[in-house]
Amino acid sequence: MNDEIPPRLRYAMVGGGHGAFIGAVHRHAIALDGLAELAAGALSATPEKALASGRALGLTEDNNHPSWQALLDAELKRPPAERVDAVVIVTPTDSHFPIAQAFAAASFNVVCDKPLVHTSVQADTLVATVAEQGGVFGVTYNYTGYPMVRQAREMVRSGSLGATRKVVVEYNQGWLATALESTGNKQAGWRTDPARSGIAGALGDIGSHAENLISTVTGLAIEELVADLGALVPGRALDDDASMLLRFEGGARGVLVASQINAGLENDLRLRVTGERGTLEWRQEEPNRLVHYRLDGPTEILTRASPWLGDAARRAVRLPSGHPEGFIEAFANVYRGIFADIRARRAGVTADPLDADYPTVADGARGVHFIERAVASSAERRWL
Amino acid sequence: MNDEIPPRLRYAMVGGGHGAFIGAVHRHAIALDGLAELAAGALSATPEKALASGRALGLTEDNNHPSWQALLDAELKRPPAERVDAVVIVTPTDSHFPIAQAFAAASFNVVCDKPLVHTSVQADTLVATVAEQGGVFGVTYNYTGYPMVRQAREMVRSGSLGATRKVVVEYNQGWLATALESTGNKQAGWRTDPARSGIAGALGDIGSHAENLISTVTGLAIEELVADLGALVPGRALDDDASMLLRFEGGARGVLVASQINAGLENDLRLRVTGERGTLEWRQEEPNRLVHYRLDGPTEILTRASPWLGDAARRAVRLPSGHPEGFIEAFANVYRGIFADIRARRAGVTADPLDADYPTVADGARGVHFIERAVASSAERRWL
Amino acid sequence: MNDEIPPRLRYAMVGGGHGAFIGAVHRHAIALDGLAELAAGALSATPEKALASGRALGLTEDNNHPSWQALLDAELKRPPAERVDAVVIVTPTDSHFPIAQAFAAASFNVVCDKPLVHTSVQADTLVATVAEQGGVFGVTYNYTGYPMVRQAREMVRSGSLGATRKVVVEYNQGWLATALESTGNKQAGWRTDPARSGIAGALGDIGSHAENLISTVTGLAIEELVADLGALVPGRALDDDASMLLRFEGGARGVLVASQINAGLENDLRLRVTGERGTLEWRQEEPNRLVHYRLDGPTEILTRASPWLGDAARRAVRLPSGHPEGFIEAFANVYRGIFADIRARRAGVTADPLDADYPTVADGARGVHFIERAVASSAERRWL
Amino acid sequence: MNDEIPPRLRYAMVGGGHGAFIGAVHRHAIALDGLAELAAGALSATPEKALASGRALGLTEDNNHPSWQALLDAELKRPPAERVDAVVIVTPTDSHFPIAQAFAAASFNVVCDKPLVHTSVQADTLVATVAEQGGVFGVTYNYTGYPMVRQAREMVRSGSLGATRKVVVEYNQGWLATALESTGNKQAGWRTDPARSGIAGALGDIGSHAENLISTVTGLAIEELVADLGALVPGRALDDDASMLLRFEGGARGVLVASQINAGLENDLRLRVTGERGTLEWRQEEPNRLVHYRLDGPTEILTRASPWLGDAARRAVRLPSGHPEGFIEAFANVYRGIFADIRARRAGVTADPLDADYPTVADGARGVHFIERAVASSAERRWL
Repeated sequence: MNDEIPPRLRYAMVGGGHGAFIGAVHRHAIALDGLAELAAGALSATPEKALASGRALGLTEDNNHPSWQALLDAELKRPPAERVDAVVIVTPTDSHFPIAQAFAAASFNVVCDKPLVHTSVQADTLVATVAEQGGVFGVTYNYTGYPMVRQAREMVRSGSLGATRKVVVEYNQGWLATALESTGNKQAGWRTDPARSGIAGALGDIGSHAENLISTVTGLAIEELVADLGALVPGRALDDDASMLLRFEGGARGVLVASQINAGLENDLRLRVTGERGTLEWRQEEPNRLVHYRLDGPTEILTRASPWLGDAARRAVRLPSGHPEGFIEAFANVYRGIFADIRARRAGVTADPLDADYPTVADGARGVHFIERAVASSAERRWL
Repeated sequence: MNDEIPPRLRYAMVGGGHGAFIGAVHRHAIALDGLAELAAGALSATPEKALASGRALGLTEDNNHPSWQALLDAELKRPPAERVDAVVIVTPTDSHFPIAQAFAAASFNVVCDKPLVHTSVQADTLVATVAEQGGVFGVTYNYTGYPMVRQAREMVRSGSLGATRKVVVEYNQGWLATALESTGNKQAGWRTDPARSGIAGALGDIGSHAENLISTVTGLAIEELVADLGALVPGRALDDDASMLLRFEGGARGVLVASQINAGLENDLRLRVTGERGTLEWRQEEPNRLVHYRLDGPTEILTRASPWLGDAARRAVRLPSGHPEGFIEAFANVYRGIFADIRARRAGVTADPLDADYPTVADGARGVHFIERAVASSAERRWL
Repeated sequence: MNDEIPPRLRYAMVGGGHGAFIGAVHRHAIALDGLAELAAGALSATPEKALASGRALGLTEDNNHPSWQALLDAELKRPPAERVDAVVIVTPTDSHFPIAQAFAAASFNVVCDKPLVHTSVQADTLVATVAEQGGVFGVTYNYTGYPMVRQAREMVRSGSLGATRKVVVEYNQGWLATALESTGNKQAGWRTDPARSGIAGALGDIGSHAENLISTVTGLAIEELVADLGALVPGRALDDDASMLLRFEGGARGVLVASQINAGLENDLRLRVTGERGTLEWRQEEPNRLVHYRLDGPTEILTRASPWLGDAARRAVRLPSGHPEGFIEAFANVYRGIFADIRARRAGVTADPLDADYPTVADGARGVHFIERAVASSAERRWL
Repeated sequence: MNDEIPPRLRYAMVGGGHGAFIGAVHRHAIALDGLAELAAGALSATPEKALASGRALGLTEDNNHPSWQALLDAELKRPPAERVDAVVIVTPTDSHFPIAQAFAAASFNVVCDKPLVHTSVQADTLVATVAEQGGVFGVTYNYTGYPMVRQAREMVRSGSLGATRKVVVEYNQGWLATALESTGNKQAGWRTDPARSGIAGALGDIGSHAENLISTVTGLAIEELVADLGALVPGRALDDDASMLLRFEGGARGVLVASQINAGLENDLRLRVTGERGTLEWRQEEPNRLVHYRLDGPTEILTRASPWLGDAARRAVRLPSGHPEGFIEAFANVYRGIFADIRARRAGVTADPLDADYPTVADGARGVHFIERAVASSAERRWL
């Protein structure tokens, strides 16, 4: 654990004001390592709420804006060296595209929550913009920040399990097992509303994490899929349950389940990857361990921060083994990677990939394409 | 635990001679309760081996036969009251139909291993024969004999979880992760050989258990499915990996995975059933517990033989809670149900359904239809 | 799994009639392998009940006796070759000594439940008698029959963990958390009654198992101990909770807990043995696995019937890995060892120690000494 | 998760410079909530190292001191309103007393790592000083900051389990299974050195946590104990293994184990508390769950942030259920309590006890008395 740090980066946040769960999570994750500090904001789509939230978080008046456009204008008026080092976008999904596009086009470094945008056209536009402008663009698929996920990635991609044959990922929650959106719950409200969440519900909210987890760990592209999306709670406008079969390049098969109607479950993201010589199993709710079933020996329990892990996992820990780390550290690891890349680019060097280890706009775009394809497969009831 | 028993039933066994794993399992399961004893046999398709096996198991000469036809002939020559009470068929699948059909047609009570037969035509024929002749016909889907599976069935079917919304069942093994059939392994040999196993490999061997587990616990019929079967180990003639999406009558959705290439896994059958008010989770490798996630309270761990279980589970235990029971007791519970039904019919009464609790020829036939449909869906790559 | 057996041995049972839990467990355990059959009995201390129980279990009149003395007399009148091969004693502890002593003195092979007898004088007398007469004498410390306990024994004794440094064993149950003995419960009645259970309650009933488990796995003698016994449920005459510190020959330290007042726990026997290079952990309620923490690598989960186990564990399994075995198989393994020894002696040969693997009268006697010493230490409140 | 905060408190740190593990943990824990910032320091006993460490952490020159005395002098020269709000002491144990005593005597609020001091005389002196001067004095028994520990405390102390009957706490680590101190390892060096760690090794380092956990959860005073301390790794000067039996006021019994030689274990702190009507079990390595075994119903798994928890646990969480929190959040909860008390006193009010929820100098002193008593019991080999 090291906290002897270079001067802090400065970030602006869009969204995440009063009562917005995920905005505070981002701020805490950033605060954990102290690598950056909140320097500006447009913290709500409602101007008064934006300003009040900024004051509560200690923003000075000239850095506290009623809208993201105002934030952008104010920043652009400053000399480049005085602008914020990154803009963090934590609004509902429907506004991701205009905001991210505007800041990326103006060469800001951007961090955007997932799913990236609503449509693949938007996603491709954004990828092109980032490519042109050259900024850093991170997407906070936070589960990839867990050390044991990175360990799994290293084991799978290094070939130590042999070629991947089967991948099963499930992301099950229970919080939408009832019609929570009809009770005024804010989270449930926007996540089940097509206007704000787009064409997918559970699939977009958590299925996107599941897809990213598969892609991160295996590196395999999905070639074909057949999906079945359902709104199992009566009256719901978007899917709350999604299951699909996958075929990957090279012949591996897969199953992906994302469901928010599993009454009583909490945040049960599970991954199992089978290679020719072994199988890995990981659960987000017990994130400090990775089970390694082996063809040629007893099952091993790999634990976070133990001496036998690879480089990627080793760099992602703060505490010794047996001292549990959790969600916030994983989230902070994504930010650590983004900030390392920003610093490296500032310094005119290429960051070590194990330091600049974070999901990019390309990952975000692939996720949007995936969602579109799964929705289409379900609607057409066929393999795509 | 009670072993004060009425006079033992007498059973004949077809197949299960020297070196046949599953035959010995059946005999041990029957021996556990002492409700029946091996009285006759045709223990191998090879006459010399059949006779040698029978001698080793203590059969007298007149009850030890070189073929199942000889067994049938000899039994039919006896007065009905002196014939065996049941015929247990534990041969490879390809011979199930002729043997079961012959004995059922001759009004014997029959117990047959799963999958029942190779084709749905055979299955329907057998169902009709049993219906005509009126004998008992049990199919040893042994996993349904676990007390906690019966508890799950009672909780789901009684409606205490509300209507079923989602079912996920996985049956993963690793023993066929290599081309074991090319090493002379007898089990691997016949299970990967279309001539002896029919149109399905993993799907038939263990997918049939998975389907039966869903059906037993939920009672829901599968209306549609889309399946993806693969032979992921190079050179294999039958599927060693099967995944599918399910739609049930009434709107519930499901996922079924059956795979024998999960390197390092043993016999990992897992079930999760989600209803409106709760979710149940069970794993065959920890069979004495059932996890009950609840919408309205903390998760509960239900344990075998604890006082809060229902009738079905309570009747299926032999030992107090905390004294683990396992595979053999579950298997024996299926036999206990079959024998209870035989005794009841002998006595001219209808058995209590919780006593005569076992999978029947109808379950076996439904399983064969399921296999055919899944194979067709995978071949045609579409929903059926 | 093999059930091709030599001619069955014949055993007599003393105690274990109607309603006696443990007698039925012994009979089921013996039945599992079919190595012996119940041939005679004196199944209760109440003559009428003894005879009725014998009839219910199918004993013929001449083998069904109103008392153990009558059984002994009848057997002695037969030619030696026609006597039973073993006498199984499953009465409450107070009658173990006279019965076991009488049969051992008459050169019968004896199997006796634990704790062996009430006093160390009795125990030493019995050891001497057995030594003189040369019969087999097994004590059913059944937990040592678990394959993974035998695996732990092999790993510890072979030195693969280095010298043993620390042993912690806990045996916690909850069934005596209330004054169950005051409700007429038969089990609770005799186990909390000094007249029938001797000087120790929980310590004798389950602490004796805990001591035996330590001794079996480590082979270390207890040199000193300090114990604290309590009757934590008001009004109880014998201890229901016992804890002690241990010092072993060679310098290892230990802790032993045996308690029956852990409300809500079932039969939670746990063992942890620490050597210089690793630590083993086993729980009776998940008996098919053994956790191996290692100084020089990831933790391993060893599973029953997996290929990497040693000889002792391999011989103690009936089913493949992933097919759970439990309490009854472990119990049956103790009997299998006893019967193997009886057969070997009959054949005039020395049995392979891994076949004749069972706790002997010496183990039983050591357990009685242990109980006496612990009771004295607690009474005198000092190290002994 | 809320990060809208009042102006930050300012703290000074003594010890915790370059390479000191625990100092960085304290700083990260404080940073997580942003309630206070590092404002001054004397970060090492070596002046040059102290100053270099302070610079690396961004301390200004006038707040960066070569020794704790210099820090104290500088602070005292300032007007009271400009002094730091708290002094955090994270030096090896031998220097706790002079530093803590000096700052407490000067009316500073103090936070001190555990164990508090070397002798009970020192501890009592410090208690008296704090009582006279009236400052806040927190001791960082960080494990009591876990939400599920606070839940256990509420359940036990509210009487919902009935009177406590038995407590078993084990704190097992493996990092001192070899003579690590002879390899130059700094942590191992001072923790096994009587000059710096006092009379106890494992007992002081982790046994103190175990004692505090018992005391926190049950509120019961230890009346008598018999302890056995050993240095099981050859050549070690202080105990690396400690076990003891406990008797509590009111009749409950207990067992405490603290050992650092459990090869392969990480940081395995476990607690089990048995009351008349139920038993609670908690493991630090899976801190988000608390198992509740019940006399009158199925076992419950209580999870962090679930709706059925009490007030104390509810206030101690930052993230929703299923989003794992760990060690750093628990540590931060202790600081949150300390800072809440400081703020309340500043405001002249009494803090809500559930806000000002932290171990005090009285807890620290009780821990020192406990260590002395256990060392004496082991040396005299008797109950004390």
